[in-house]
Amino acid sequence: MSSTYGQNIRFTIFGQSHSPAIGVTVEGLPYGFKPDMDRLQAFLDRRAPGDNDLSTPRREADKFTVLSGLKDGAFCGAPFTATIENTDTKSSDYAPFRDTPRPGHADYTAQIKYRGSQDFAGGGHFSGRLTAPLCLIGGICIQILEEEGIRIGSHIQQIADIRDEPFDPVYPPTYRFRELQEMTLPVMDLLAGVQMSEAIRMAREEGDSLGGIVECCVYGLPAGLGDPMFDGMENRIASLVFGIPAVKGIEFGAGFKAAEMKGSEHNDDFSIRNEKIVTETNNAGGILGGITNGMPLIFRAAIKPTPSIFKKQQSVSLSKMEPASLQIQGRHDPCIVPRALPCVEAAAAIAVYDAWLESKKF
Amino acid sequence: MSSTYGQNIRFTIFGQSHSPAIGVTVEGLPYGFKPDMDRLQAFLDRRAPGDNDLSTPRREADKFTVLSGLKDGAFCGAPFTATIENTDTKSSDYAPFRDTPRPGHADYTAQIKYRGSQDFAGGGHFSGRLTAPLCLIGGICIQILEEEGIRIGSHIQQIADIRDEPFDPVYPPTYRFRELQEMTLPVMDLLAGVQMSEAIRMAREEGDSLGGIVECCVYGLPAGLGDPMFDGMENRIASLVFGIPAVKGIEFGAGFKAAEMKGSEHNDDFSIRNEKIVTETNNAGGILGGITNGMPLIFRAAIKPTPSIFKKQQSVSLSKMEPASLQIQGRHDPCIVPRALPCVEAAAAIAVYDAWLESKKF
Amino acid sequence: MSSTYGQNIRFTIFGQSHSPAIGVTVEGLPYGFKPDMDRLQAFLDRRAPGDNDLSTPRREADKFTVLSGLKDGAFCGAPFTATIENTDTKSSDYAPFRDTPRPGHADYTAQIKYRGSQDFAGGGHFSGRLTAPLCLIGGICIQILEEEGIRIGSHIQQIADIRDEPFDPVYPPTYRFRELQEMTLPVMDLLAGVQMSEAIRMAREEGDSLGGIVECCVYGLPAGLGDPMFDGMENRIASLVFGIPAVKGIEFGAGFKAAEMKGSEHNDDFSIRNEKIVTETNNAGGILGGITNGMPLIFRAAIKPTPSIFKKQQSVSLSKMEPASLQIQGRHDPCIVPRALPCVEAAAAIAVYDAWLESKKF
Amino acid sequence: MSSTYGQNIRFTIFGQSHSPAIGVTVEGLPYGFKPDMDRLQAFLDRRAPGDNDLSTPRREADKFTVLSGLKDGAFCGAPFTATIENTDTKSSDYAPFRDTPRPGHADYTAQIKYRGSQDFAGGGHFSGRLTAPLCLIGGICIQILEEEGIRIGSHIQQIADIRDEPFDPVYPPTYRFRELQEMTLPVMDLLAGVQMSEAIRMAREEGDSLGGIVECCVYGLPAGLGDPMFDGMENRIASLVFGIPAVKGIEFGAGFKAAEMKGSEHNDDFSIRNEKIVTETNNAGGILGGITNGMPLIFRAAIKPTPSIFKKQQSVSLSKMEPASLQIQGRHDPCIVPRALPCVEAAAAIAVYDAWLESKKF
Repeated sequence: MSSTYGQNIRFTIFGQSHSPAIGVTVEGLPYGFKPDMDRLQAFLDRRAPGDNDLSTPRREADKFTVLSGLKDGAFCGAPFTATIENTDTKSSDYAPFRDTPRPGHADYTAQIKYRGSQDFAGGGHFSGRLTAPLCLIGGICIQILEEEGIRIGSHIQQIADIRDEPFDPVYPPTYRFRELQEMTLPVMDLLAGVQMSEAIRMAREEGDSLGGIVECCVYGLPAGLGDPMFDGMENRIASLVFGIPAVKGIEFGAGFKAAEMKGSEHNDDFSIRNEKIVTETNNAGGILGGITNGMPLIFRAAIKPTPSIFKKQQSVSLSKMEPASLQIQGRHDPCIVPRALPCVEAAAAIAVYDAWLESKKF
Repeated sequence: MSSTYGQNIRFTIFGQSHSPAIGVTVEGLPYGFKPDMDRLQAFLDRRAPGDNDLSTPRREADKFTVLSGLKDGAFCGAPFTATIENTDTKSSDYAPFRDTPRPGHADYTAQIKYRGSQDFAGGGHFSGRLTAPLCLIGGICIQILEEEGIRIGSHIQQIADIRDEPFDPVYPPTYRFRELQEMTLPVMDLLAGVQMSEAIRMAREEGDSLGGIVECCVYGLPAGLGDPMFDGMENRIASLVFGIPAVKGIEFGAGFKAAEMKGSEHNDDFSIRNEKIVTETNNAGGILGGITNGMPLIFRAAIKPTPSIFKKQQSVSLSKMEPASLQIQGRHDPCIVPRALPCVEAAAAIAVYDAWLESKKF
Repeated sequence: MSSTYGQNIRFTIFGQSHSPAIGVTVEGLPYGFKPDMDRLQAFLDRRAPGDNDLSTPRREADKFTVLSGLKDGAFCGAPFTATIENTDTKSSDYAPFRDTPRPGHADYTAQIKYRGSQDFAGGGHFSGRLTAPLCLIGGICIQILEEEGIRIGSHIQQIADIRDEPFDPVYPPTYRFRELQEMTLPVMDLLAGVQMSEAIRMAREEGDSLGGIVECCVYGLPAGLGDPMFDGMENRIASLVFGIPAVKGIEFGAGFKAAEMKGSEHNDDFSIRNEKIVTETNNAGGILGGITNGMPLIFRAAIKPTPSIFKKQQSVSLSKMEPASLQIQGRHDPCIVPRALPCVEAAAAIAVYDAWLESKKF
Repeated sequence: MSSTYGQNIRFTIFGQSHSPAIGVTVEGLPYGFKPDMDRLQAFLDRRAPGDNDLSTPRREADKFTVLSGLKDGAFCGAPFTATIENTDTKSSDYAPFRDTPRPGHADYTAQIKYRGSQDFAGGGHFSGRLTAPLCLIGGICIQILEEEGIRIGSHIQQIADIRDEPFDPVYPPTYRFRELQEMTLPVMDLLAGVQMSEAIRMAREEGDSLGGIVECCVYGLPAGLGDPMFDGMENRIASLVFGIPAVKGIEFGAGFKAAEMKGSEHNDDFSIRNEKIVTETNNAGGILGGITNGMPLIFRAAIKPTPSIFKKQQSVSLSKMEPASLQIQGRHDPCIVPRALPCVEAAAAIAVYDAWLESKKF
């Protein structure tokens, strides 16, 4: 088992890239809460392939249908299930990869694990498409958290070797969160964005792809959320973020840079600002001992380059046990980093909502 | 809740730094298996403070006592509980930190979360000491996995800005795993080790501390372990590794470097070696789609510098809500990276064992 | 949370009586297994209202649609979701019960728990209709268990004060299981069945309803399934059976009669038959210490009379906090015992399948 | 896995009858709450063998030691572990039962399940002794619930064919709960108690044993606790109660008698008393749709006669696969019903506490 997450909210994401539908079944949503369905759809649309030359030409409306869990538009306490139909599918594109697995994809590992029973079409349950239901439930959590004064923003920290200006970890630019959500390439430094666009276009022309880093900030968190040792905020967020295909690393606050810092540099001194206890710096990324300290929660996720490239690659024929080369056709993103942003925000929102429910028990 | 992990193995770590005992209660160990208690103790000893000038002068034998779950030295199917007594405790050292929380520690967040009921002495349940039970259960899993031909090794990849030679991700030096386990500072490049020792001694003299990076390799894994989307190997390992206090980041395979790579560089081509399917490179760190591909599983964890430093630091008095400075006394490691190695190996072993049990169901 | 069950199989039942659809999302089905969809539909049809004068005139085809989890008709390892549309709904029938809760129903308790947000139409998530997804997943488990030589049968042990001949607990009539499945009123003693029919018709004419007892037998179980203390077979089955609305009691083997027996009567002596260890009697109902002993697993569930009766009843107006009488209209079963049989069998099959998966880990 | 229960409170009971200790590890206790340790010990003492001729001569002080989870006598948020030493053990008494399993015990099923690795001494993890940790955690929950105005009482409803006066389900005799707790044979009707004593003594003299029924009442519950479909109050309580060895049945409210009632008899009409909504009768046992309705929660558990009898019994030699007779020596209760009462109360308290924590999330 696997595609289930959570203790207080608990959901299972279902569906394959080419099954009749994908979707999510959720328990633990607050009864009486009325999600804004238009905003939720808008959030999902951020993940959907863009109408531009930076993403895949596959067109999916990603329109969701609610099957259960609502009464007069509000959560009614019964499990919530919503689905998204799969429409624009071309299964025949994927037939060859059953025997000749694509490098960087789950074709081979799925074949071994499920002993050939997996749904290989379009990547099956491993498709990035399965992040749509993640965004659906995350988008709902975002709305719930907003009522508690909690806001989430993210930007592209890096694509290839082009770096954006990082969020200020003590005074993150919350006033730009909305603007970032509306950008095709959400960056703080517009020039970096232009360079990133250029790099993505060049990769596309070469039939290649690019990776990057997403930085995410949760702002307005109360101190006291998170449950050591294994349900701390880092554990919770990591569990979800690694559920997004292509994520290969995560770091909180100073993260890997902490390795080069001394204790006297890394420790965030406490002080008082506006009658509130704060830290002067935020190398901890807002988390001490797994528990939020009231400072902005900051983390970064490393996204590997899209494994679907159009260059010729070396693989093997599983049936013949001999080398085989393959060349991927079809429609693919040269860089999925921009589409990963809402997924990362969704993961953060879900983790925070789960910890918040936990904190209400005592 | 929190200090419980696992679905197939399931354990709860209990205890505070200064409670009568710490320990672990475990279900899901293989009945009939006879753990080698001497080897298990030796594994625990790697985590215990060393008898040298690189670690804390606190002396803890970390001798464990088994209360239940064994019959004639073998697991009997009933829950296994083992405890380690807390002996060398000096609670009075910690009294001031209840009101004036130490920067970088969980004093403040625990105070808020538990509304003053937390056991603050010695860091309570947040103490690094709680990794001893983690090593206890991990050490058992290591023995179980060895019978399946799976071996785990780790080294200090970095302390401050001194870098060790990384493990070759395709041909990791398994023949040096045992030697690494016996070194005070386990490194591949002995010169780097000398420099690290020097840096730690200098930090100690300055009353400061250092962070670092641990690299860990699980070798001999079959392909097919791990359960997408949220119980993939990355999710499982991250959930455990972030349970080790001081870990602030984790990356698999090429990790954050993947951000700068092209798909054509990052994708690991498949080929055949000794009639086995392998990949030519191992940027995936042995994991595709959350599932092991039979290559060495490689990951790195970032360890922040020990927050306990002897320099004067700025904090606040919680009762008076005014600035307050503090100076930590007591006995602390200037760098906990060497002691983190067995903890990281334990986390990896537990995650793999849990996924392995899961795979046996079908 | 609540409508989720299981550790090895894990599923969530969703939907309300009048939501667009009801259904179930499941993880833990054996990949490669091809369920026989016609047999599955036939199993569901046993639960559906009969085309006779013993059940509700509400007509629901209970035709299910699979949204995910299959590839070429076999389970593919991804979560399985199937839905059943709600078609023949008359929500207006239920409007008055929001303010004046029906005795014996969950109207009042749901109103308090969900603070008025519950979906009251048709009983919402509390409707007996939600047992259709339970039968869907149970019907799959029955097919899986059959491949292991395990068969499940049940009969109506009692309706009102009319008793059927009980299953022989040592030699249960497995040769009649199929015949029982096809009867409108599945009984061993046909005369008792005639009397039960008569009693149900009479209750219907009086606008009243009847309860009863279902007896269920799982045959062909290996010894060794079940996990004490809280995942023993009794615990597992009870957890599921009490998920069927109207169940108010469960007993295993001699059950409540054990209270009047001496140890020398209740203990089942061991003996050897056909080179297999058996017990001479089966007062234990096939379970010792929570673990199957290889004898037939026998249990009985008490079903309360349908709370929907057409007689005038006393209730209260929640808004006015004053007495109010109510009279239920609509379409209801005068006795749901016959329709409860497949639900009870489904519950037993799921519990056994879950325990069986668990047993494969070690 | 198995000996773990709960979602909001979560605990694992460990130990075998003759291991160094038995105990429990618990998460989810309310930090800041100070359990009254003397009352807790007194509660445990109710379960311990009595100093009279109605119970086993095995003498166990059942004194518990707290290893972790407390700070200054109050729960501190870290997992709570307490142990009870095993002292008065005679393992040699049990050696013969490894090959010749005792009828009615788990000797045979444990042998099969654990393939001979089980700890057979004293019944190992299957011993009734393991209910001591259940009472320990239940006794804590009782204290927590009392602060919410919730009280739990129980009496012996039946031993052999001698019946006590049942609790009035609408007006249960809460004023006698304390008195019942202090009686050797807690009954409402003292004459029934005398007859029960007599019957137990007679069974003892015959080397035989008796079963019975326990009736338990939870009083003062708010309406709205419990989570359909599988975490309703019936499911929760049944899961725990079947964790008590020897329980073979459970029923709520009218229970199995509901089978003979008409809907018009079984439905509990709503009315208003003291400005509170109540029901006129309580056939539902305080639970509708799995959720408490504010009326007393009433259930009964059937306890089988102690399987340890001193008469000669028929069994088999597992090694020789031939019939073998056996005669149990040692120290055993002729009737464990009186000692089961605190266990049943503990189970009820834990289930209610778990549901109560759940209800605080929303």
